[in-house]
Amino acid sequence: MDRDQCLALDAQDPLRAFKDEFVLPEGVIYLVGNSLGALPRRTAERMRRTVEEEWGEQLVGGWNHAGWYEQPLTVGDRLAPLIGAGPGQVVVGNTTSIAIFQAVAAALRLRPERRVIVSDAANFPTDHYMVQGLAGLLGGYEVRDLAEGRFDDAAVVLLSEVDYRTGARQDVPAVTAAAHAAGALIVWDLCHSVGAMEVDVSDADFAVGCTYKYLSAGPGAPAFLYVNPRHQATAENVLSGWHGHAAPFAFETDFRPADGMRRFVVSTPHVLSLAALDAALDIWERVPMAQVRAKSMALTSLFVDLVGDRLELASPADPAARGSQISLRHPEGYPVMRALIDRGVHGDFRAPDTLRFGFAPLYLGYTDVHDAAATLLEVLDKELWRDEKYAVRLAVT
Amino acid sequence: MDRDQCLALDAQDPLRAFKDEFVLPEGVIYLVGNSLGALPRRTAERMRRTVEEEWGEQLVGGWNHAGWYEQPLTVGDRLAPLIGAGPGQVVVGNTTSIAIFQAVAAALRLRPERRVIVSDAANFPTDHYMVQGLAGLLGGYEVRDLAEGRFDDAAVVLLSEVDYRTGARQDVPAVTAAAHAAGALIVWDLCHSVGAMEVDVSDADFAVGCTYKYLSAGPGAPAFLYVNPRHQATAENVLSGWHGHAAPFAFETDFRPADGMRRFVVSTPHVLSLAALDAALDIWERVPMAQVRAKSMALTSLFVDLVGDRLELASPADPAARGSQISLRHPEGYPVMRALIDRGVHGDFRAPDTLRFGFAPLYLGYTDVHDAAATLLEVLDKELWRDEKYAVRLAVT
Repeated sequence: MDRDQCLALDAQDPLRAFKDEFVLPEGVIYLVGNSLGALPRRTAERMRRTVEEEWGEQLVGGWNHAGWYEQPLTVGDRLAPLIGAGPGQVVVGNTTSIAIFQAVAAALRLRPERRVIVSDAANFPTDHYMVQGLAGLLGGYEVRDLAEGRFDDAAVVLLSEVDYRTGARQDVPAVTAAAHAAGALIVWDLCHSVGAMEVDVSDADFAVGCTYKYLSAGPGAPAFLYVNPRHQATAENVLSGWHGHAAPFAFETDFRPADGMRRFVVSTPHVLSLAALDAALDIWERVPMAQVRAKSMALTSLFVDLVGDRLELASPADPAARGSQISLRHPEGYPVMRALIDRGVHGDFRAPDTLRFGFAPLYLGYTDVHDAAATLLEVLDKELWRDEKYAVRLAVT
Repeated sequence: MDRDQCLALDAQDPLRAFKDEFVLPEGVIYLVGNSLGALPRRTAERMRRTVEEEWGEQLVGGWNHAGWYEQPLTVGDRLAPLIGAGPGQVVVGNTTSIAIFQAVAAALRLRPERRVIVSDAANFPTDHYMVQGLAGLLGGYEVRDLAEGRFDDAAVVLLSEVDYRTGARQDVPAVTAAAHAAGALIVWDLCHSVGAMEVDVSDADFAVGCTYKYLSAGPGAPAFLYVNPRHQATAENVLSGWHGHAAPFAFETDFRPADGMRRFVVSTPHVLSLAALDAALDIWERVPMAQVRAKSMALTSLFVDLVGDRLELASPADPAARGSQISLRHPEGYPVMRALIDRGVHGDFRAPDTLRFGFAPLYLGYTDVHDAAATLLEVLDKELWRDEKYAVRLAVT
């Protein structure tokens, strides 16, 4: 496909108007929306309002009048449709790691007779690390890698819908059914799928995810936690903080969980960070997710076609079997990526040899993908990555 | 003391210039700085910069170039002098509740042969609730109330330097020494003391606190966690997330704790909320804390003197024995407070009968205190609180 054909596809793109809702620096093709989503234009004004009008003018009254107190639930309700959930099933706040701890600990207490946690070495490391920390705290639990393939004695299975490294996509309904058939509960990590495709966790037991990737809610934006309604009356939040209490302003001595999802709110929400998430959801409530997925598959396929067989494809070749990301292998991946970034094409690198490119369909076009692939081929053809300045490692790579 | 004398004290106040650094709504005397501190003027510009220049322009590069990745530690180092700590001893992030969970869990693992956690029913409820959640998760632990007075078999003691309800101040050195003499570790909750007085936790084992009260870092601002250097090599962070790993970008399968305080960083920091904390610390690094404490004691004493014996004093009568807060009892405390707020004097109410007034010395003057007391006396003398409209409860009181 040549550049003119890409321009024509962009002109016909039903999502093309969304690009104007994001701030993108001149001369940059940003293929890292799978790590940190671009800034929505509306967010700056929303932050100003929350800081100057809510905090500045309402002061502590903001907890009532600006709705801060309810935001973990009200913003959760706004996010819920993006993961196939309904009202009263999602809370936002804290971080993905904390939400994993809450979900896995709750699942273990719902399956007290079992002592195995199945996690996946291909999960993003924090998932695995948090489970290790929980297992170490409790004692007597085995953390088994998914590769062993056995769910039969598992209390809980923790998996990612989309693999952060390769973009490979799990079959959520099939794996959920397999876990349930074995008597296990399942926790899905949706960090790399939410906002990039239609997600449906309505059969899952728990789900977690972050909002700073495709959802563009800002660096370190709050995470979300989903609890299936069938568990809400019995699931315990072991991080039983004041905001999860049934009557916080009674200041009782003993914890008594609130009904429903409120019990999973731990403590004072990060209001400023939540404001940016709420602003991003002003966009997402207008986004037709089936179109996002269709465009995402077209963009990743275009990139693979244009790069051809110049680099080993680490992602599944079938677009239906991957998320909105393409991973390519190169033994000198680090300087290759630095050389690309120097030419305005921003991807990232994951040791030891993986170049990652994320495709956020709301602000990337076909022509962007064409130009990114052309730049990558030029960096490879001319061996531009051999410049010494690209060998110097940055702290965060 | 009459109003003219208060005006004269304000004119001589060495801290008077700080008031201009805060946004305070016209006609409001804000005595809730012990719950949510007022907005620093500089914060709005700092938030704009972080959102528009860092996130908007640097995008994912902000983790390197804007220093986001290191902020849990660099901002922690800036906060450290306010609690008598040194560099490399404090991390910021998450919430006080999460920090309590980390600190108490770490302490329990340092005292594996003991099975008692001493907490204080007078602690803010979240402290007690988080400990109950942890004890329930672990099983086999007793949560003993401080009132029983025994530390001898305690693994850890969790206490607040200043009581949120009465403002009563603990003798930190004496209680720390008593805990240590009994072989227990101690975790201090500094939520109601940091920013209001000189705090010194250098003998303590752990300390936690929030930054949205006297420190004015914004609604739901990140918390801090202090770990004494003598424990840093051995204390475990049971919330062992990716950002606490020794080599996060090696993406290892197993958690391996970073050296020093970094192991207590759980996961991706809330960058937007952290920016507001960093902005507030631009003020605090210029604040002479001995002057803050002297003015705080003068302000609380003035308020007590002016209100006289019209209401029962729930706070200690000796200013040295209390924080920067005065609590008064009235059987109809809720409508009394609503009537006060309606007249521009903002305090808060804690069930069943406590009127709380916080005195933030950076933006409150002697004349403010004079006028607040006069308004309170008027509300009481004229029984203005009997108006029906003040009986309607707000969600967050």
